[in-house]
Amino acid sequence: MTRATLVFNGIDKKIDLESQTNILDAARQMEIGISAVCGGRGLCGKCRIVVRKGAECLGPTIGLERLSLSEDELGEGYRLACCATAARDGTILVEVPPESAIEQQRLQVAGIETIVSPDPMVEKHLVVVSLPQLDDVKSDAESLITALSNQHGIGKVSIGHDALLQLPHAIRDQKNYLMVTLYGEDKIVWIEPGEDLTPLLGLAVDLGTTKIAAYLVDVKEGRTLATASSPNPQIQFGDDIISRISYAREDKKNLKQLQGSVIAVVNKLLQDTCREAGVEARQVFDIVVVGNTAMHHLFLGINPEFLAMSPFSPAVRSEVVTGSKDIGLTANPTAFVYSFPVIAGFVGGDAVADILATQLHKAESPSLMIDIGTNTEVVLSDGTKLAACSCASGPALEGACIEHGMRAETGAIERIYIDHENLEPGYVTIGGTPPRGICGSGVLDALAFMLKSGIVDKRGRIVRTLGTPRIRSANGIPEYVLAWKEETEIGVDITVTQKDVQAIQLAKAAIFAATAVLMRKLKIKPSDIRRLFLAGAFGTYVDPQSALVLGMYPDIPLNRIRFVGNSAGSGARMALISKKARTEAEQIARDTDYVELAADRAFREEFAKALLLPHTELERFPTIAQILSRKG
Amino acid sequence: MTRATLVFNGIDKKIDLESQTNILDAARQMEIGISAVCGGRGLCGKCRIVVRKGAECLGPTIGLERLSLSEDELGEGYRLACCATAARDGTILVEVPPESAIEQQRLQVAGIETIVSPDPMVEKHLVVVSLPQLDDVKSDAESLITALSNQHGIGKVSIGHDALLQLPHAIRDQKNYLMVTLYGEDKIVWIEPGEDLTPLLGLAVDLGTTKIAAYLVDVKEGRTLATASSPNPQIQFGDDIISRISYAREDKKNLKQLQGSVIAVVNKLLQDTCREAGVEARQVFDIVVVGNTAMHHLFLGINPEFLAMSPFSPAVRSEVVTGSKDIGLTANPTAFVYSFPVIAGFVGGDAVADILATQLHKAESPSLMIDIGTNTEVVLSDGTKLAACSCASGPALEGACIEHGMRAETGAIERIYIDHENLEPGYVTIGGTPPRGICGSGVLDALAFMLKSGIVDKRGRIVRTLGTPRIRSANGIPEYVLAWKEETEIGVDITVTQKDVQAIQLAKAAIFAATAVLMRKLKIKPSDIRRLFLAGAFGTYVDPQSALVLGMYPDIPLNRIRFVGNSAGSGARMALISKKARTEAEQIARDTDYVELAADRAFREEFAKALLLPHTELERFPTIAQILSRKG
Repeated sequence: MTRATLVFNGIDKKIDLESQTNILDAARQMEIGISAVCGGRGLCGKCRIVVRKGAECLGPTIGLERLSLSEDELGEGYRLACCATAARDGTILVEVPPESAIEQQRLQVAGIETIVSPDPMVEKHLVVVSLPQLDDVKSDAESLITALSNQHGIGKVSIGHDALLQLPHAIRDQKNYLMVTLYGEDKIVWIEPGEDLTPLLGLAVDLGTTKIAAYLVDVKEGRTLATASSPNPQIQFGDDIISRISYAREDKKNLKQLQGSVIAVVNKLLQDTCREAGVEARQVFDIVVVGNTAMHHLFLGINPEFLAMSPFSPAVRSEVVTGSKDIGLTANPTAFVYSFPVIAGFVGGDAVADILATQLHKAESPSLMIDIGTNTEVVLSDGTKLAACSCASGPALEGACIEHGMRAETGAIERIYIDHENLEPGYVTIGGTPPRGICGSGVLDALAFMLKSGIVDKRGRIVRTLGTPRIRSANGIPEYVLAWKEETEIGVDITVTQKDVQAIQLAKAAIFAATAVLMRKLKIKPSDIRRLFLAGAFGTYVDPQSALVLGMYPDIPLNRIRFVGNSAGSGARMALISKKARTEAEQIARDTDYVELAADRAFREEFAKALLLPHTELERFPTIAQILSRKG
Repeated sequence: MTRATLVFNGIDKKIDLESQTNILDAARQMEIGISAVCGGRGLCGKCRIVVRKGAECLGPTIGLERLSLSEDELGEGYRLACCATAARDGTILVEVPPESAIEQQRLQVAGIETIVSPDPMVEKHLVVVSLPQLDDVKSDAESLITALSNQHGIGKVSIGHDALLQLPHAIRDQKNYLMVTLYGEDKIVWIEPGEDLTPLLGLAVDLGTTKIAAYLVDVKEGRTLATASSPNPQIQFGDDIISRISYAREDKKNLKQLQGSVIAVVNKLLQDTCREAGVEARQVFDIVVVGNTAMHHLFLGINPEFLAMSPFSPAVRSEVVTGSKDIGLTANPTAFVYSFPVIAGFVGGDAVADILATQLHKAESPSLMIDIGTNTEVVLSDGTKLAACSCASGPALEGACIEHGMRAETGAIERIYIDHENLEPGYVTIGGTPPRGICGSGVLDALAFMLKSGIVDKRGRIVRTLGTPRIRSANGIPEYVLAWKEETEIGVDITVTQKDVQAIQLAKAAIFAATAVLMRKLKIKPSDIRRLFLAGAFGTYVDPQSALVLGMYPDIPLNRIRFVGNSAGSGARMALISKKARTEAEQIARDTDYVELAADRAFREEFAKALLLPHTELERFPTIAQILSRKG
């Protein structure tokens, strides 16, 4: 019997793999979630894994794998978990790429981690202070400053008001030992008597239009202690940015309400993460916030009205530092809030953080970053400079404004497979429960397979003559039945309608056109692009092949794609633990060329051409042309 | 008939002076208040005036004047108003020195004005901003910063949070005209649309232990628009600093209460002065506060506990800048509060402001400054450097803890004369109403005349064998009756008791001893002192000759004395309109040597010797010895 040991990279679990057992089954035994819509029959191509070591211990790739994986991918060690079985003794190191991971991994608000040496804005020092004497009366402040200089080489410092209030007692308690917290190396903000060894904390906040994520970080160690997220409560005032801006414009009260609702949620996430980490919110001395420009304005209480009017100029582009008290945050009262610089009215601090986290600004060869959301930001580097733009991609990709759309919650269909022979679907729901609807990645998957199986034509029209009861018409609108009511939790058929298809078409056309315009500006061809970073929740959960099949981004080998998850949050954390990262972010915001698409003729042309599936000019998508000819 | 024209300097009133009319009568006709306790009989020596021009138009000095005025004074043009009559045609320019002025002048919270070129911390600029264009999208902040640079040559600036909130609308209203308020040349704190031509205001606050005075200032013009004062509400928690510190120590709540009560009064004075000047409190962008170190700590909410414990070290000596909002002041929300640097635990920012206002730090010959209050600060310059100390002079000089003592309010006896032949007194009350009690300057006057007329001996004992019903004993304690109950408003005899005399003796001994110690340290003799500045309310209203007769300060010619009134308030105003003055204040606080008297043997010795009236060593007071021998 074969005695191969299977190790899942990054998850730190291992199992002995018996011969003929495939990796998908082994993963299930170990409760490692790998997506497999077709149930492990090698049909859906979703259970992608990367074999990092010990590929020779597995059996050879089979035909089913060759259909789903490109030559490049095969060369890099990609396999389908359901097709890879142990053949020889040895250790096999396997990685589950984000696109195949389900459940636990998918729900994390992680994002990539770029290595940053901690060099935080706030620091804590232990100081031993000599008390003043009658023959040498110094003020307590002078005694402290002298000690800081002698013991830590810290020069000119000022003492904040709160610290001043703490000083007289602190200096005389606990044998003259003090813990002094400094902000920006030259401002004493807080003083505690004695040797307070609790960690110095910071909070990184990603203000998404739909979701707010917070990361509690030990800034000295650069370690994330807890994370939490919550829906953006502004949703009640409008799903998208434009409707919130309209609401804010109606009345000054409304602006306060929009700001207040977000501040309240950030405070809640602060409390939640602190509780989880077993620390006090008053240990949080620094807060970094990223968000799109409208969220940035609303968070700071700046009227966003003019963001929605040509020429869409923001009130401010550079970083903004405010007192946490001034905007109502309940961290340490002396904490500062660093709001990321923004690039333009519709390319915000989240895009700057994306660039920082992916290090796109340091790319030496052409690289592309797409942060997909209700608004999609696209940033392109030609290896020397950056250009950015944004487009409205609408809520469809987040499962909204879709007939049976829902957020990526339990019961949402998130992975779909359609057999191109009998046109029968297979699907996986979040949490494995009977379906309640379809989330964004599910809709995209559905459309990709509908295209590959010929259910929709290149114009996006549902073909009604294929002789399957799955395709039908409701109130004159064609639709494809994904789940019969008997299978669902909601007791009605779950369908993808012609209107849903159109919404996705519009979204993907906008994203592709934005990307194409930037590529034109910087004279970059698809084949030049060495790296495509897909950011944002949707960008992480989407099946990259489905997106490519639909022509959402340029035709580049899948192995050049990196899913960076919530890289905006990662960038925020980097700025929290490193002053240098802040300086870089400010440089990025200044140096990135903003391309305004509102009045751009090239964008309109590209958009029109990108409405077809995958594209009017099929020669721009050779890989997809090949797949479609292979499968369809 | 003589046709002399009498002009009162600084009051801008003139009158034709008929021959034989004396200047005191003419002043009364013109409603100019000149002190004259004896009713114009040349006995009290209070109606001192200085003839600046046209002395030759007056009759010669008479014997009565020679008794009250020194040779020096006569040489400088001093006369008694009741003795100076017109003799020839011409114009006579007369000045009423502060010590002779009554009523209106006395009640002002003015203080001297040293000429300062306005160079305020806050400035307002009119800016015309070009709106961003679609082909050149700048943020509003960038548009403003560019305009400020082009139109006013103002370089690197930051924009405060409030200004940021105002910017987007302001930039688009009123034809892109903005009024921008800057703090410290590099921080935009406030933005208003249009050409806002209202003055930019500041508030100077003098936090006295007993009284709080506020001055509303047009900082650009350097002009005081309104002044107001109010008793220090902390009096309810203790008359003197030490009892307030004890109260603060008892409970954290008490500290808050002490701070809150002062803040409330400053807010009220802010409102009052703004109402008087017809302006809004939100036009006040800068606040400067001076006070003794305990008041400074309590104002900022710093526990003053350790000020009252050896080695009496303050929490901080350097200037403190806080947000007005942070301590609850209701000026413009972005206003900063500059708290003067202090010299030591008992020599505070008020002394620094005194020095600044009197320019003592620039004195080229030995000069002395005494700021008399419950606590008295003494600062000596030897012409090159400054030394300062402070002593507890108690509340007696402010009319407290005196049998019939009262504050300097209507009905208080403030000037006294005792005929050295019949020992009958004459007095003047504030407001001219029947007496209700005696204020500090009255008590001092009384004691001086009691000494000169032999009612008290050099040990301060009331002599009971002089055969006048005015001297009697009540409950075994000797006293002198100043006003019989029939003359008073309170229906009881108003007396000066043996205990009152002792309180004054202790106070004057402390002040003299403190002065003597500084003079020893800097090796300065009384005759070296070219200028003695008497500051503080008491210092202004006191009769300098009475104080000298009692030996309160070194024996120097009266014409070297300058009454500078509330010079602490003047110094605060200087710092409000001039950044340079702030820098000077900070330099003064750093450079002034503090002399701690608590453990000083020389002080104890000097104090013991100064308890006698005028002093144990009469040779140190040649002028007084002469007066006493002349009159007593």
